[in-house]
Amino acid sequence: MRPVSHVSGIHFLQIPGPTNVPERVLRAIDRATIDHRGPEFQRLSLEIACLLHPVFGARGPIVIYPSSGSGAWEAALVNTLSPGDRVLMAETGQFATLWSRIATRLGLDLDMIPGDWRHGADPDAIGERLAADTAHAIKAVAIVHNETSTAVTSRVAEVRAAIDRAGHPALLMVDTISSLGSIEYRHDDWGVDVTVAGSQKGLMLPPGLAFNAISEKALAASRTARLPRSYWAWDDMLESTRTGWFPYTPATNMLYGLREALHMLDEEGLANVYARHARHGEATRRAVQGWGLELVALDPREYSNSLTAISVPEGFDADALRATILERFNMSLGTGLGKLKGRVFRIGHLGSFNDLMLAGTLCGVQMGLDIAGIPHGDGVTPALAQLTNPAPALALSR
Amino acid sequence: MRPVSHVSGIHFLQIPGPTNVPERVLRAIDRATIDHRGPEFQRLSLEIACLLHPVFGARGPIVIYPSSGSGAWEAALVNTLSPGDRVLMAETGQFATLWSRIATRLGLDLDMIPGDWRHGADPDAIGERLAADTAHAIKAVAIVHNETSTAVTSRVAEVRAAIDRAGHPALLMVDTISSLGSIEYRHDDWGVDVTVAGSQKGLMLPPGLAFNAISEKALAASRTARLPRSYWAWDDMLESTRTGWFPYTPATNMLYGLREALHMLDEEGLANVYARHARHGEATRRAVQGWGLELVALDPREYSNSLTAISVPEGFDADALRATILERFNMSLGTGLGKLKGRVFRIGHLGSFNDLMLAGTLCGVQMGLDIAGIPHGDGVTPALAQLTNPAPALALSR
Amino acid sequence: MRPVSHVSGIHFLQIPGPTNVPERVLRAIDRATIDHRGPEFQRLSLEIACLLHPVFGARGPIVIYPSSGSGAWEAALVNTLSPGDRVLMAETGQFATLWSRIATRLGLDLDMIPGDWRHGADPDAIGERLAADTAHAIKAVAIVHNETSTAVTSRVAEVRAAIDRAGHPALLMVDTISSLGSIEYRHDDWGVDVTVAGSQKGLMLPPGLAFNAISEKALAASRTARLPRSYWAWDDMLESTRTGWFPYTPATNMLYGLREALHMLDEEGLANVYARHARHGEATRRAVQGWGLELVALDPREYSNSLTAISVPEGFDADALRATILERFNMSLGTGLGKLKGRVFRIGHLGSFNDLMLAGTLCGVQMGLDIAGIPHGDGVTPALAQLTNPAPALALSR
Amino acid sequence: MRPVSHVSGIHFLQIPGPTNVPERVLRAIDRATIDHRGPEFQRLSLEIACLLHPVFGARGPIVIYPSSGSGAWEAALVNTLSPGDRVLMAETGQFATLWSRIATRLGLDLDMIPGDWRHGADPDAIGERLAADTAHAIKAVAIVHNETSTAVTSRVAEVRAAIDRAGHPALLMVDTISSLGSIEYRHDDWGVDVTVAGSQKGLMLPPGLAFNAISEKALAASRTARLPRSYWAWDDMLESTRTGWFPYTPATNMLYGLREALHMLDEEGLANVYARHARHGEATRRAVQGWGLELVALDPREYSNSLTAISVPEGFDADALRATILERFNMSLGTGLGKLKGRVFRIGHLGSFNDLMLAGTLCGVQMGLDIAGIPHGDGVTPALAQLTNPAPALALSR
Repeated sequence: MRPVSHVSGIHFLQIPGPTNVPERVLRAIDRATIDHRGPEFQRLSLEIACLLHPVFGARGPIVIYPSSGSGAWEAALVNTLSPGDRVLMAETGQFATLWSRIATRLGLDLDMIPGDWRHGADPDAIGERLAADTAHAIKAVAIVHNETSTAVTSRVAEVRAAIDRAGHPALLMVDTISSLGSIEYRHDDWGVDVTVAGSQKGLMLPPGLAFNAISEKALAASRTARLPRSYWAWDDMLESTRTGWFPYTPATNMLYGLREALHMLDEEGLANVYARHARHGEATRRAVQGWGLELVALDPREYSNSLTAISVPEGFDADALRATILERFNMSLGTGLGKLKGRVFRIGHLGSFNDLMLAGTLCGVQMGLDIAGIPHGDGVTPALAQLTNPAPALALSR
Repeated sequence: MRPVSHVSGIHFLQIPGPTNVPERVLRAIDRATIDHRGPEFQRLSLEIACLLHPVFGARGPIVIYPSSGSGAWEAALVNTLSPGDRVLMAETGQFATLWSRIATRLGLDLDMIPGDWRHGADPDAIGERLAADTAHAIKAVAIVHNETSTAVTSRVAEVRAAIDRAGHPALLMVDTISSLGSIEYRHDDWGVDVTVAGSQKGLMLPPGLAFNAISEKALAASRTARLPRSYWAWDDMLESTRTGWFPYTPATNMLYGLREALHMLDEEGLANVYARHARHGEATRRAVQGWGLELVALDPREYSNSLTAISVPEGFDADALRATILERFNMSLGTGLGKLKGRVFRIGHLGSFNDLMLAGTLCGVQMGLDIAGIPHGDGVTPALAQLTNPAPALALSR
Repeated sequence: MRPVSHVSGIHFLQIPGPTNVPERVLRAIDRATIDHRGPEFQRLSLEIACLLHPVFGARGPIVIYPSSGSGAWEAALVNTLSPGDRVLMAETGQFATLWSRIATRLGLDLDMIPGDWRHGADPDAIGERLAADTAHAIKAVAIVHNETSTAVTSRVAEVRAAIDRAGHPALLMVDTISSLGSIEYRHDDWGVDVTVAGSQKGLMLPPGLAFNAISEKALAASRTARLPRSYWAWDDMLESTRTGWFPYTPATNMLYGLREALHMLDEEGLANVYARHARHGEATRRAVQGWGLELVALDPREYSNSLTAISVPEGFDADALRATILERFNMSLGTGLGKLKGRVFRIGHLGSFNDLMLAGTLCGVQMGLDIAGIPHGDGVTPALAQLTNPAPALALSR
Repeated sequence: MRPVSHVSGIHFLQIPGPTNVPERVLRAIDRATIDHRGPEFQRLSLEIACLLHPVFGARGPIVIYPSSGSGAWEAALVNTLSPGDRVLMAETGQFATLWSRIATRLGLDLDMIPGDWRHGADPDAIGERLAADTAHAIKAVAIVHNETSTAVTSRVAEVRAAIDRAGHPALLMVDTISSLGSIEYRHDDWGVDVTVAGSQKGLMLPPGLAFNAISEKALAASRTARLPRSYWAWDDMLESTRTGWFPYTPATNMLYGLREALHMLDEEGLANVYARHARHGEATRRAVQGWGLELVALDPREYSNSLTAISVPEGFDADALRATILERFNMSLGTGLGKLKGRVFRIGHLGSFNDLMLAGTLCGVQMGLDIAGIPHGDGVTPALAQLTNPAPALALSR
């Protein structure tokens, strides 16, 4: 029988993206489409170009594709590399793995540092590989800032430092799909060459747009890179960041939404946005501790503030728990991906979110654990305590 | 300083109405207005007429006013009564008081049974007054089904029985503004003559529409009633319930929303809707018990399932608590009205609502009590327990 | 068979109200309802109060009712008059007649100056009646600024002058339902005591709100007026124009729309708004002249700029023409009302409207005349000529 | 000075795409995003898969990309071809040229049949090239069904017949970006191997989705094709057409809109949709004839029904005319593209459109010609006559 609460009230979309799209953004998208070659479009386009820079921490060009995030992965590679080029990646989880498959499909030579799916990209391991690569066969290091399958945030600045210490000229590419607009990110300061991003997480939009922020060095590389490319080619796109005109028909209505979302981030203030995500990440981890469950992430320095991945005890099925919670409480949680399938569920707490949405989310998980018969303590109370009177982060209090 | 979570995520509108308007209803309202004398409007109008009947439990006519609920109060009186007619009312709280003031302003002779604002209309007291009124000077008994200022639900069927026992011909008028579509209501079965309702509570619409459901007896009374009336006059309006055409320009876009809301109630099933509100009412009362706070309502038979009114301990200001919760957690709660000002706050849990919205709401109240320094126990845990494994209602378990 | 174009594209809602609601207004209405007792509502409410003044040309209070325009008619009367008071009205058409019926229903003593439904209120006739009323039995003169049934605009300033010449103390009440925000109107400058308005015409909103702008003299009258009133009573409402809080639950979402619409009028500039309506009125009259059809309005000084009422030749049915146009061209035109039924159709050209919408409208009428077999010349060409190179108005060129 | 009508009323978006998005579609897009791995998404996805088939006239798989139409061009090529493969194209205009540039960028060997930008792809010329290609070096013939830069519709069935007559195994690829859902198209019946389409024209959506309909033969080719591909790779995508799950995060909200648009096409009936576009195409050409201007298209068999491209007389600037019309009448028209820049303007009359929108559009052009001082006759009158009493098409009446 259909549970009584299912059809009423709002759905709690607590997968780690797409996130809950705010009313302001949905209503902005819900406007008549305009001529993409007219003056009003140009103003829209240039305003967005301006508003995007602080979010990426980038002063250089940022191109916008009508595509999913996987398109921006591909764009980063095809614009800067040539057939057979070696790419160094770190196996942090499912999304790093998917990105690496794209590299392979495109005919690149993949060097993947194996990982346990519980840690971020290891700056030391990367540094060692680069130091050993005296011939500079490695043309790019590509890592995932926030691995959405494991809720582990890699330390990009430390990776940058490792590359620099190795004195290696490889490009640094970073996937920020589930961190941008949620966890502090600094394209320029961290010396990132290509930042890959998507619309449907911290940017609070529906899925459908993807981004490449591009360094001078990446631009230079693109001039000689020989992978075939057309749709993803930066050359024509760069024009648009200056003139406001796109080389193809842009996804106008999504751009309306993007402008609104960027205004919302600006109004809240990026520092406040990051602090909010940090509070929610910490409160969620307090709840996990209270439940007596285990985080996938092992290193407190790498805890993600945009989502939390949690293991269920042996003998229980995380997807059965998720199905119960969806059925009974109208909440979607993230499934375990790849090799974590069935053993892990993920709580997204990013994007347009606040304390009471988090409280409702955590209550839903706790009631779901109850119903599923998974042994657990009380996680809600310590989470509420954390929200009320923020204590130092768990990581530091250990 | 603006708290970091304030500007992000959804507002928790937990006043006892207007309630959270569901996306489907808002989007239905957001359509081009049509000709109110054209065929498409007629279909809309007749479809609504059809869908309204089960919600009121009425087979007779139901007229729709573009007005607030107070207009429907006035309509009930002016259509059925003449200058100087006596009306018997019960002082159940602020809204009964406001309705009585309208009666007085309109030149009616008010007989108000005093009350302590903690009980519903007393069927026995009403019966006694009517029995004593052998001259049948009382022309109408007017009570509030669910007193929104106190969260007390009067027992309409018992009031009906008392009138019948007294053999008195007075009309029975009932205000269901905060109960219709949330708490079971039976216009026909309970022998109600005029039911007063509004759009912005259980019907899940924005404010702006109000209703009168009308019995045969009330219709008959309207033919001889002499209070001056025009806007509220049923005669022209009744036409519209048959033909679909209104005697004035109807609030077309609100009617779009009404149709959608009525479809939603129908899809969920009224029995499920009532059961959902009962679960949420009970869970909220478990929370209040856990907090060690006091309900305004004293009689478990009269606990409201659409909202809960709670007293704060002596020495604390309920409005300061509400302000804290609004500021810190972006949640609006109901203020204490009239003589309850500052001593009571109210939690609305009606309309488009579900378990996790309630959980978030109760967590917000509990965190607010913490911050405000109001001594309290843990109410969230017993509420969650009730939501997870519904126990018999508190009322019955005493 | 359903005509192929019927289901595609936009409906042309060219009745003289409700008018085409602009996207910005619909989307403003499509927002989550907020607490009508919270700070955000107060800001909304006070901003509207401020923006309304220039539109009415009134510095005094303007109250807003959740109601149709007919409610505001009633409000004007019940707040200022006492049972048996005499009201002088002018029979300009259907809406003047409907307003007079309200007066009668409320127990007022109606003195209606007969009219031919082709002229506005006659200042001289009004002056004569008032001069003859040496006992000052007439308490109010109530006229319709723009008679929507005939497309005749009364000369309010001249009526005011006639009252003044007669030295008569009667209040002046004016219905601006189909003129406000379209045809210049000056509540203060013209010495109007109560201005009646609605949301669904020049204000570009869906129906559901109505207004009374109130002079000092009307306010004074309201203190002694004895018609029973509650919902419409100004006293409690006046509070709201100062504090932003309403004495009842206001129609919040409609108020969102009102704020947006008022901003749109302000952005376009009222002078431009009036000039636009004047251009469209003139172009439409050029079309009528080209078609060789007859305007209902006989006096060029009284031609309406918000709509045009047109007679069909003897032997043709205006409603059959309207049905043809609706069926073939997906356009709604206004029907002939009251005694004009079947002989007249009306074109609304007010509200959110522009040259090409008018061109499409006039083309639709011309094609409809063709299909209906009504003899006619070419009206589109002179209308386009007028839109392209505005010539002096027809009225002046005679 | 800002013209008075500019800011009021609807914008006439009469570029040949993006087209006017209907309210139903915009409102469908304006819904909360859901979990793309949940059951509700699966239902959405499978429903769309089902509704797409009749629109393409294809029983085989149709993949949907979050991308612009140019992405679907690229997808068609990279999935079926290998580096150095020869592609035969016909230079029908700007879009054929752009597609050919993509082929070149991707390392294909382009054989472009030159054209005058006033005719469609020549079946005979194509047949000759193929007949001459006895070695079957040509792997694909790629043509544009409806060349949006010239308003010329190629005769795909005749091209198919020419290929068959030549007994050549080349794949047939067809761009239907500005014809699908407007001009009859039959992927299966015409033996097309890859159909390329976009969301923003006849499908009445905002830009952001693109499509490939795929024949068995194209599928077989994709298994051996060696152009590198990942984002555009059909293999993973085909899964989604069967299971409803996408290999990447799909553009959920655009898919909401697509479902609604497909329902609208189904409700109107595809035959009615095509007939409507044919009527509007013919009426527009009557207007052009009346104006005494010249169509770009020279062959009446190839007149486009979704847009019309018109030359301005020597000595006049088509873009100045467009700017005047935008400024004065708030209408966007299509610019001349590529070598037609400044000499041609284009009127889009496709998508969500009807007779009065067309009438308004043609009036706007005629008034613009007036203001721009371009000599012209009366085009509106013959266009209205055609809409009122459809005469045989111009093409046939010559």
